[in-house]
Amino acid sequence: MLTVHGMKASGNCYKVQLALEQLGTPYRWVEVDSAAGGTRTPAFLAMNPNGKVPLLEVEPGRYLPESNAILCFLADGTRLWPADRWSRAQALQWMFFEQYSHEPCVAVARFIARWLPADHPRRAELPRLIERGHQALAVMERHLAAQPFMAGGDHSIADIALFAYTHCAADGGIALDGYPSIRAWLDRVRAQPGFVPMQA
Amino acid sequence: MLTVHGMKASGNCYKVQLALEQLGTPYRWVEVDSAAGGTRTPAFLAMNPNGKVPLLEVEPGRYLPESNAILCFLADGTRLWPADRWSRAQALQWMFFEQYSHEPCVAVARFIARWLPADHPRRAELPRLIERGHQALAVMERHLAAQPFMAGGDHSIADIALFAYTHCAADGGIALDGYPSIRAWLDRVRAQPGFVPMQA
Repeated sequence: MLTVHGMKASGNCYKVQLALEQLGTPYRWVEVDSAAGGTRTPAFLAMNPNGKVPLLEVEPGRYLPESNAILCFLADGTRLWPADRWSRAQALQWMFFEQYSHEPCVAVARFIARWLPADHPRRAELPRLIERGHQALAVMERHLAAQPFMAGGDHSIADIALFAYTHCAADGGIALDGYPSIRAWLDRVRAQPGFVPMQA
Repeated sequence: MLTVHGMKASGNCYKVQLALEQLGTPYRWVEVDSAAGGTRTPAFLAMNPNGKVPLLEVEPGRYLPESNAILCFLADGTRLWPADRWSRAQALQWMFFEQYSHEPCVAVARFIARWLPADHPRRAELPRLIERGHQALAVMERHLAAQPFMAGGDHSIADIALFAYTHCAADGGIALDGYPSIRAWLDRVRAQPGFVPMQA
């Protein structure tokens, strides 16, 4: 059985949970408290030298890190991975967009606003993160005004990847009021069979 | 014919050039000077609302952004894309690692050190970027000590993705002296048929 080493309140880990639930794939979940150093222990670093969750244990001793690579692995050959080359390219485009242009501002703003003390020096980063978060959301809004899902007509892992931190962007001070197409898309993702909300 | 909108001195754009040359795929190159605002014009934003190069024009009016998604699209069905599911997952793992844990420090350090004036305030970011760049290289070094290429036994687009900024890490003050396995791997990538150096 697959084992996920993850932290339930992390959007990157929630992606993996959501894909497994939507696919109906059995799995075991090992909660790792990265805030308390759980990803920096010698035992964890032996599994993932990059020291991050989520980490998928495919079989004993065989590990796959990187949330979006895990999504691709789980979706391979399923309805969540587009069958044609162009749609696959679009799905990957939005998953790389998520990790480069979206997560580093939307997720980091949420982390700082929600978990760091009110007087923490990293709060000075928030205005710039919120500005860049809105830039990423504007790109998504424009895209979703023209089509129902990120990679075209069908729900895919690109939607799961971007749902994870977009749906809770307001936690980091990035309100979704100005993005009607994104809000309609969030509801379409929530309506998918097997959907589970993030436990955060 | 495929058209690449890119900037030759950018490692993200070089990835696309290197894959096309290794595959022997004909293409047209349109040089875009992003430093002079070439990715922020209305005409460019109409092609890529995220305002970044490289951008692959697959046919007139059909555009694919995100360097690593372009690599996946170009490599689909070729020797540069692993045939088995686990190796594909590993290739994607390292490509997401590249965009999240490697490029934002190794490439950004190079950009600041090489193109910004000596008195530019962003130079204050360099020590932290160099520290994080070494952390990313240490993860690669450990991996490459045990296998010849990033996704296992064969050269793939994961190697192209990580070669782009690793081979010129010293431009940003991140010396490769302490990474013998990385240096041997760089030479293995340079020895691939169709290899071309970066014009930078």
